[in-house]
Amino acid sequence: MTYVSDPAAPRIAIAGATGAVGNTLIELISSRGLRHRGVRLAASARSAGRTVEVDGRAQVVEDLDGFDFTDVDLAFFSAGTSVSEKWARPAAAQGALVIDNTNAFRMDPDTPLVVPQVNADVLLAGRPASGIIANPNCSTIPLVRLLQTVEQRWGIRQVVVSTYQAASGQGQHGIAELREGSALALSDPDAELPADRFKPALAFNVVPFIDKLLDTGFTMEEQKMLQESRKILGLPHLDVTTTCVRVPVVNSHSEAVWIEATEPVDRAELVGRLAALPEVTVHDKDTPGGFPTPRTAGEPDHVHVGRIRVAPHNPRGFWLWLVADNVRIGAALNAVQIAEYVLDRGLL
Amino acid sequence: MTYVSDPAAPRIAIAGATGAVGNTLIELISSRGLRHRGVRLAASARSAGRTVEVDGRAQVVEDLDGFDFTDVDLAFFSAGTSVSEKWARPAAAQGALVIDNTNAFRMDPDTPLVVPQVNADVLLAGRPASGIIANPNCSTIPLVRLLQTVEQRWGIRQVVVSTYQAASGQGQHGIAELREGSALALSDPDAELPADRFKPALAFNVVPFIDKLLDTGFTMEEQKMLQESRKILGLPHLDVTTTCVRVPVVNSHSEAVWIEATEPVDRAELVGRLAALPEVTVHDKDTPGGFPTPRTAGEPDHVHVGRIRVAPHNPRGFWLWLVADNVRIGAALNAVQIAEYVLDRGLL
Ligand SMILES: NC(=O)c1ccc[n+]([C@@H]2O[C@H](COP(=O)([O-])OP(=O)(O)OC[C@H]3O[C@@H](n4cnc5c(N)ncnc54)[C@H](OP(=O)(O)O)[C@@H]3O)[C@@H](O)[C@H]2O)c1
Ligand SMILES: NC(=O)c1ccc[n+]([C@@H]2O[C@H](COP(=O)([O-])OP(=O)(O)OC[C@H]3O[C@@H](n4cnc5c(N)ncnc54)[C@H](OP(=O)(O)O)[C@@H]3O)[C@@H](O)[C@H]2O)c1
Repeated sequence: MTYVSDPAAPRIAIAGATGAVGNTLIELISSRGLRHRGVRLAASARSAGRTVEVDGRAQVVEDLDGFDFTDVDLAFFSAGTSVSEKWARPAAAQGALVIDNTNAFRMDPDTPLVVPQVNADVLLAGRPASGIIANPNCSTIPLVRLLQTVEQRWGIRQVVVSTYQAASGQGQHGIAELREGSALALSDPDAELPADRFKPALAFNVVPFIDKLLDTGFTMEEQKMLQESRKILGLPHLDVTTTCVRVPVVNSHSEAVWIEATEPVDRAELVGRLAALPEVTVHDKDTPGGFPTPRTAGEPDHVHVGRIRVAPHNPRGFWLWLVADNVRIGAALNAVQIAEYVLDRGLL
Repeated sequence: MTYVSDPAAPRIAIAGATGAVGNTLIELISSRGLRHRGVRLAASARSAGRTVEVDGRAQVVEDLDGFDFTDVDLAFFSAGTSVSEKWARPAAAQGALVIDNTNAFRMDPDTPLVVPQVNADVLLAGRPASGIIANPNCSTIPLVRLLQTVEQRWGIRQVVVSTYQAASGQGQHGIAELREGSALALSDPDAELPADRFKPALAFNVVPFIDKLLDTGFTMEEQKMLQESRKILGLPHLDVTTTCVRVPVVNSHSEAVWIEATEPVDRAELVGRLAALPEVTVHDKDTPGGFPTPRTAGEPDHVHVGRIRVAPHNPRGFWLWLVADNVRIGAALNAVQIAEYVLDRGLL
């Protein structure tokens, strides 16, 4: 129980509380013992009135439409980009510090884009002009956590990433559609599969298309990884190019990452530096299995790295394979760690 | 019916006739009207005695152990590397020209490694010293079919590939294991899944490990793509680096391919050149869906390419997404097209 009467503890609200990220926020607030003076829950009119347990107390879900943020100190938003576009600024204007999980404000110059392990220090400047702190995209977060040490030690010439992104990136409906489609395909190979969240259907397929197509021919998801990495790392010319692909995995994104450094890279030193990063697990030849996969990586609150190998023909080039829980590391945990940083330093 | 009495038509044998590739060889010999004077079938003792239909005739499967190739002109081998290591040279010594689908002879200097659309002309030198023509790896074949035109027009500085390889790459048992594991995982999230062909289990997972691990930290599958591409394209210094990943797709491999050319690349010209290649379909913005996926690419005997995009910040760098049926394009069809080339030119 981390409900406290201490007036320094924040009053919290979660918009999108009934979703995949919202559920995990509730669980993490409890399991990590985040001190608070109450957690209010909001979602759409569809879920308003439902009861959800928070820190052992039954809590009624409210309609976000008409929700009053006047008595809220800290508001987590994870109800989709258009919902944040509509409600995050009003919530901030009513006094709440907003931690936003959507794409709505990530590139806004008045909004810091934060991965606590990488650039939390930008928060020391005090309350952002927008009243909002943005959480990066779920594929960007684990990547920049590894890139930072590479840049500092060897310099980065180029990063080429192919992603293997799980259905849960489309929330609970995404997971349901993958399960339903898979069951159908197993029972009837000619069945028409549901293709609402994923087009074409994701069951027993891979779909190289996430979010919308831009004029460059890249998708928005691919562009986010470039732009957000540059902003978080403070490297406006960083060269990151990506193909983003949805795969029929329930949860946890994977990425095959090729990095060309500016200096030759010693593998042993690279492994040592990655293993020393906070909340990172390196899987190597001596680990059972030797490499992480979405279903077997273990500790869900770590970024898992394996298949670390320097190219025999190019000592500046090396591959990493990373696996990270997109709902936790890529969203809810990152948001809660931002909150912890802000609260621990009295920055609210 | 392409059984003919013409003495110029070959007597054919298929070793591994009951497998995924073997089945497809039988189907293609029939559907493409390959002229022959009989097709004998061989497999292990497990399948010997079974009857399989070939070109409308019932044919009994023989045990490869003790099989006499004296009266065989053309022998397709697709029964695994160790089987080819044991039986392909004896078959060639008995007079058969062997077209081998396995990894046994690909890098042998006395054995040509052939993708008909790319380097069939090496076959004009006549019967290889080994009596064997090797079929490349299923991920290499579609890749080199696209790389050749890029090299000729713009030059290649570097190729970075991440693969998305289907369960059928491990044959019929691989497909069965994926289906069985998927059904189990759907009915019970805590079920222990079969993990014999794929370790860990492939259902709802991605596994960045195919074939065995080498001292370099790369897998054999990854090394094959480099070495085979160099041999087929006749470019001993070509720089191809790969991460090979198994995905829970039944059939057809996909690849996210980043190419850095030595000259700036014009996208329209690139699209035009790729679309002009034989048996290649380009999917572009104007195609329904706009990109190929394993389940929706269409024509199984074409290499499908989409998501063609030049990097905004680097006019020499571009991405391709390719999808190709690994059992057909990556094995059986390539082998049959080698046979057609040899037979059409009287090279047997
Ligand atoms: N899943 C991930 O890996 C991930 C990672 C990073 C960021 N995000 C971002 O987090 C957000 C939520 O993702 P999710 O995976 O949790 O999705 P989800 O499972 O579909 O949940 C969506 C949540 O938003 C609520 N909602 C939807 N429309 C609303 C509206 N008009 N007004 C108020 N509430 C509304 C839903 O409430 P109802 O129950 O009432 O429908 C639900 O609580 C998205 O913006 C996503 O981009 C997700
Ligand atoms: N699948 C692909 O995408 C692909 C692509 C390129 C190359 N290849 C290569 O082609 C080969 C076959 O692949 P596949 O996918 O067709 O595998 P598969 O479905 O498992 O079939 C294997 C075949 O080999 C036979 N066989 C196994 N052990 C044998 C032995 N000791 N003696 C004689 N026959 C034996 C099997 O006969 P039984 O029925 O008697 O067991 C069966 O006919 C492999 O070497 C593979 O590397 C496959």
